[in-house]
Amino acid sequence: MHVHGQYYRTIFVADDGFTVAVIDQTRLPFAFELRHLRTAGQAAGAIRDMIVRGAPLIGVTAAYGVALGMRDDPSEAGLASVVDLLGATRPTAVNLRWALERMRGVLSTELPPRRVERAYDEAARIADEDVAACAAIGRHGCTLLASILEQRVGRAVRVLTHCNAGWLACVDWGTALAPVYAAHEAGIPVHVYVDETRPRNQGAALTAFELGAHGIPHTVIADNAGGHLMQRGEVDICIVGSDRTTAAGDVANKIGTYLKALAAHDNGVPFYAALPSSTIDWTIEDGVRDVPIEERPSREVTHVRGRADDGRLLDVEVVSPGSAVANPAFDVTPARLVTGIITERGVAPASRAGLLSLYPERSGG
Amino acid sequence: MHVHGQYYRTIFVADDGFTVAVIDQTRLPFAFELRHLRTAGQAAGAIRDMIVRGAPLIGVTAAYGVALGMRDDPSEAGLASVVDLLGATRPTAVNLRWALERMRGVLSTELPPRRVERAYDEAARIADEDVAACAAIGRHGCTLLASILEQRVGRAVRVLTHCNAGWLACVDWGTALAPVYAAHEAGIPVHVYVDETRPRNQGAALTAFELGAHGIPHTVIADNAGGHLMQRGEVDICIVGSDRTTAAGDVANKIGTYLKALAAHDNGVPFYAALPSSTIDWTIEDGVRDVPIEERPSREVTHVRGRADDGRLLDVEVVSPGSAVANPAFDVTPARLVTGIITERGVAPASRAGLLSLYPERSGG
Repeated sequence: MHVHGQYYRTIFVADDGFTVAVIDQTRLPFAFELRHLRTAGQAAGAIRDMIVRGAPLIGVTAAYGVALGMRDDPSEAGLASVVDLLGATRPTAVNLRWALERMRGVLSTELPPRRVERAYDEAARIADEDVAACAAIGRHGCTLLASILEQRVGRAVRVLTHCNAGWLACVDWGTALAPVYAAHEAGIPVHVYVDETRPRNQGAALTAFELGAHGIPHTVIADNAGGHLMQRGEVDICIVGSDRTTAAGDVANKIGTYLKALAAHDNGVPFYAALPSSTIDWTIEDGVRDVPIEERPSREVTHVRGRADDGRLLDVEVVSPGSAVANPAFDVTPARLVTGIITERGVAPASRAGLLSLYPERSGG
Repeated sequence: MHVHGQYYRTIFVADDGFTVAVIDQTRLPFAFELRHLRTAGQAAGAIRDMIVRGAPLIGVTAAYGVALGMRDDPSEAGLASVVDLLGATRPTAVNLRWALERMRGVLSTELPPRRVERAYDEAARIADEDVAACAAIGRHGCTLLASILEQRVGRAVRVLTHCNAGWLACVDWGTALAPVYAAHEAGIPVHVYVDETRPRNQGAALTAFELGAHGIPHTVIADNAGGHLMQRGEVDICIVGSDRTTAAGDVANKIGTYLKALAAHDNGVPFYAALPSSTIDWTIEDGVRDVPIEERPSREVTHVRGRADDGRLLDVEVVSPGSAVANPAFDVTPARLVTGIITERGVAPASRAGLLSLYPERSGG
């Protein structure tokens, strides 16, 4: 997508053919800066320090990290060591592990002298596959926005989203925001309501930044405001991402998603989750019962990071000192509240039958 | 209620018999400091600068402001001038205007030499009436908590609340928190989940402070987390305040209340609004249609006030620069989502019939 008129991916190989460039997401939204990764250690640091975040982007960064590692030591020992190094950065990231295993599998079949080239090729393939999946999600989701426009001629289609499931979390396009970018490209006027998404403010910081930089009209709101807007008829459709979707269509996503789904349901607003099929967990049905919810550090609630008047980024304390804090990071929206799931293969009802209609190879037997 | 072992009201006459002491709420939760008001101008400043906030407390402060003004000039002109001065501080505060009219009416019947004493008496009466109403709300609400305890023997009754409808918004006890304090006093173990309540963070700052200072166990959560907690069975009852309740039982309250009511309804958690009958607007039925919703400054969303590492209170910017912001301050929870209304006269269903059962004098005819 574009940042102030120039096209970027969140990760790309620089003109020298080996340096890996990433957008430093810890500096957003107040500064747009690239970081240049020249060693596997720097790639591991970028993942660990959350210079890159978002499951797909973490996976691609790890893949390129392996390629950088191969430049230093393409031996079996070097490969094992770089996979260990990168795998230790974010212990719970499923996508990270998947990308590293894929790189290890491919490189094991090559002799060391060919591993650098093969590693860059494979990392690029992982990145391109992610871009293709997100672009397909965008095309499918765009048809939903186009049909809303037909019913509501003469003004923008108003989309509410939660957290950041945009291109900054992926390589390009994003998941929940891909339909928005596709609609914008197709000349469909869109306006996005962006939940600030406490406690980490990914909506106010990242989603607002990427929409603004690409030129998409949007309005940031407190997480508390979305229900009121839907009640007043100000939202045409909700689209969110998903960290994990069950075989029955239950959607685990950033904490607060469930509340917006309830409001959408109460007001007849369609509610969609957009996700690559890699995040569907075919082994579980009941998300409320079976998806473990990460409890994150209380400091994310007690402190808020922002820019002071003098331009410095700093944390301020906002909770009464001594109070206990709970910080569940995700919640589960039951399939009954989800109008549909948008994947790279199309749009389907949020149900086992719906998902199997897109992925018949999962029907077993 | 208590602050670290000592009993306070939010406003009281000091030992000298005329100085009016208030808790400086702009300094909470990081410092507990009293401010001493010795002139009507200082009282007006305390209201305008939000040293005092909360409709009942603003009203009482204005009443004492009139008393302070009478010390300077008890003439007709002095009375008119002090009422104007105080009335201009918060143009939309209904309670402020009500208290000033009551003071003006009472003092008009007295000759100037008797006005100071009469003004202090009447202000004290307004304060005591508020305390009595809140204490009654506490007693009635406490019966609800007691009956939950009977069903769930052996652990604390878990209450979720939104914003600050505690004693800091009133003179003592509070509205939504009065049942909690009453239960605590009655030996019923309670645990309160406190919504942080963006954008102004009254939950994290004020509710958490007052519960902590009084010794009530509580946990602060992001506004996004309440639905998840209810889904997991972690909340026994929701109690919120109300800025305005319609004759049909629709509840206008701080933005985000509606989302919690939806989650309570979806999970079978009882949802109550606690309010003095003075906030019931008998002239309207349909709150979603007829309650005007204040749009507040965008800076409340774009900036967060907190305490920096060096102890200074400062604002940090948290929204991507250039993004538009919407900041509706209240929302309306339809009566169908409200289990009951707790008032100074008792608990009733959230319906016209329910409210009239408590206030038969309103049935007209």
